[in-house]
Amino acid sequence: MATVSDPSQTRFFNFSAGPATLPLPVLQRAQQELLNLPGAGASVLEISHRSRDFVEILESTTRNLTELLSLPDNYKVIYLQGGSRLQFSMVPMNFLRGSEKPADYVTTGSWGKKALVEAKKEGPVNLAWDGKSEKYNRVPTDAELQLTPGAPYTYITSNETIEGVQFATEPATGDSPLVCDASSDFLCRPLPIEKYGLIYACAQKNAGPAGVTLVIIREDLLERGADTLPGYLNYRQHFENDSMFNTPPTFAIYLVDLIAQWLLKDMGGLEKVYELNQKKAACLYEEIDRSDGFYQGHAIDSSRSLMNVTFRLPSDELQSQFISEAAKRNLVSLKGHRSVGGIRASIYNAMPMEGVIALQEFMQDFHEQHSS
Amino acid sequence: MATVSDPSQTRFFNFSAGPATLPLPVLQRAQQELLNLPGAGASVLEISHRSRDFVEILESTTRNLTELLSLPDNYKVIYLQGGSRLQFSMVPMNFLRGSEKPADYVTTGSWGKKALVEAKKEGPVNLAWDGKSEKYNRVPTDAELQLTPGAPYTYITSNETIEGVQFATEPATGDSPLVCDASSDFLCRPLPIEKYGLIYACAQKNAGPAGVTLVIIREDLLERGADTLPGYLNYRQHFENDSMFNTPPTFAIYLVDLIAQWLLKDMGGLEKVYELNQKKAACLYEEIDRSDGFYQGHAIDSSRSLMNVTFRLPSDELQSQFISEAAKRNLVSLKGHRSVGGIRASIYNAMPMEGVIALQEFMQDFHEQHSS
Repeated sequence: MATVSDPSQTRFFNFSAGPATLPLPVLQRAQQELLNLPGAGASVLEISHRSRDFVEILESTTRNLTELLSLPDNYKVIYLQGGSRLQFSMVPMNFLRGSEKPADYVTTGSWGKKALVEAKKEGPVNLAWDGKSEKYNRVPTDAELQLTPGAPYTYITSNETIEGVQFATEPATGDSPLVCDASSDFLCRPLPIEKYGLIYACAQKNAGPAGVTLVIIREDLLERGADTLPGYLNYRQHFENDSMFNTPPTFAIYLVDLIAQWLLKDMGGLEKVYELNQKKAACLYEEIDRSDGFYQGHAIDSSRSLMNVTFRLPSDELQSQFISEAAKRNLVSLKGHRSVGGIRASIYNAMPMEGVIALQEFMQDFHEQHSS
Repeated sequence: MATVSDPSQTRFFNFSAGPATLPLPVLQRAQQELLNLPGAGASVLEISHRSRDFVEILESTTRNLTELLSLPDNYKVIYLQGGSRLQFSMVPMNFLRGSEKPADYVTTGSWGKKALVEAKKEGPVNLAWDGKSEKYNRVPTDAELQLTPGAPYTYITSNETIEGVQFATEPATGDSPLVCDASSDFLCRPLPIEKYGLIYACAQKNAGPAGVTLVIIREDLLERGADTLPGYLNYRQHFENDSMFNTPPTFAIYLVDLIAQWLLKDMGGLEKVYELNQKKAACLYEEIDRSDGFYQGHAIDSSRSLMNVTFRLPSDELQSQFISEAAKRNLVSLKGHRSVGGIRASIYNAMPMEGVIALQEFMQDFHEQHSS
């Protein structure tokens, strides 16, 4: 098999919204071990999910996530496949089917809208708040939420990847369990987990590669799924089988573990990661704010995302030019999602400050060249 | 991040049933490119699934699978997550829900049994044949099948990984579409695809790593899934979105492509692979047959699997000793599935003849030491 790679090639600063840039030390470690996991006599890609070597990786992953997030004993971590799209259905299949009371959905962007479509197939739903009329440029205040007393759960999307709109703190949703799609901001900051019933994240933004979905569930909710559910779609099945109900995505989990180790040891834990993420985001938002409207941010100040910085330029032509000139400086994947256009710079945990500063400098230069 | 790998370490002959041994040239190529996919400026783990680079990989994978299997235009390849377990439910959700006629299930081992459990949750099922009373040691003859005229589909498991029982050719199932779980023998031989309505394989045996499920579906069957199905569970959604209904497991698909290239170019296509697989399996079955009952094969001759060679020794003690002494020769993962015990040697496409001969020689030596 021919190989054409040139190891001296430049790695770009990759602002992709996901799959997204990963920590270089994680990639280097994975590369070094790819033919032979120490002690295994085989690649981690080749070993049985029930082998001692893989079971240790799985246990290490859970241990490291538990430490990173300070998870109490009554929260369980399970590893699934199918991404957010499958969670959009699994959540209502487990918690809403057969309920007379509606689940509350808070819709702050494109992914929340899609989750709502799937929930309606499974049971009654109350749209507790919808940001559509404001083009999904903010999250609601607690006072704006129209919640259902005794709802089976309240559903939010903590960070809307496409619009770049993020909850700065959890909304007050009363007694009903808070269910959260945290796909694009999981592990970006410490988590007051006791406020959640279930939180999930497809890994390919902050937590790993595409192909594994992390679910953290409060133990008492595991009882809710009916036995008549399709086996794979019942959270309890996965919990009772320690995420070995079927063959888990072993390599993706191995990378999640390496990333969790990197966050704990190299980055110093989530408090420090959060500080750095705030600084990184501030660089870009300050650039937007001092551009006199040349760069127009999408989200209002209090709802700005730390992970996905979204903005527009005065014309589509300038936007295209911005993207192509940035690429010449090896700043890539800055195009906004095809559904909304504009520019989106995704600056997840693994994007170094160096990359953010390079983008900020480019924004300054580009603005200077095109003002007057 | 500390790295502790020693690249000079020995790679064992790994007889794991899955995840399983992968072709060394594929692993080497993946290792070389892991930090930097040529031209991408990033790892294949980091690039957007909608990037030009990944779309080319996806198209290449489909092109190479199409060539390997000589797929006609009316068969479509889609890439899913969730493994066979999710297919156990997706098949009846798409093709059985709302049907008055039962689907026919042919049960030749453990996985077929589990598929049947999920089908019963979705609609009426007819057990067209069940090998339970013979301990799942064979596949049925065509005459034994009790088929339903006009059944929505007939379901088989082409190779039962746990029992080591394989259909040598497709059963005659009349007009109803043949649906096949080919997880553990996909790509082991050429496929008369026109006999199938749908064939699927979780990749982690012959076709890739854990985390991607390949589905080949006859175009007319795409229409059957109801719009009320959960979005991720409707085959049509994935087809209409070119397997981009959600973020596909990009790295796993990249490896499937490398493996398909290896099968086409290095191995010379599926006819040659099939010849080699027959020779490899013959080595081990001949050793069983000339052992005067020391090694007792599970499957009857005509149903023996080319992929999973299952046998027992005269006692549990000898079996444990067999496994531990084999490991000293770097022949590993020979323990039978925990549900049935015994020995299982999985010899998928990527297991070289050299590994099979090493195992055969060990079997001879072990037999000599323990006879008389």
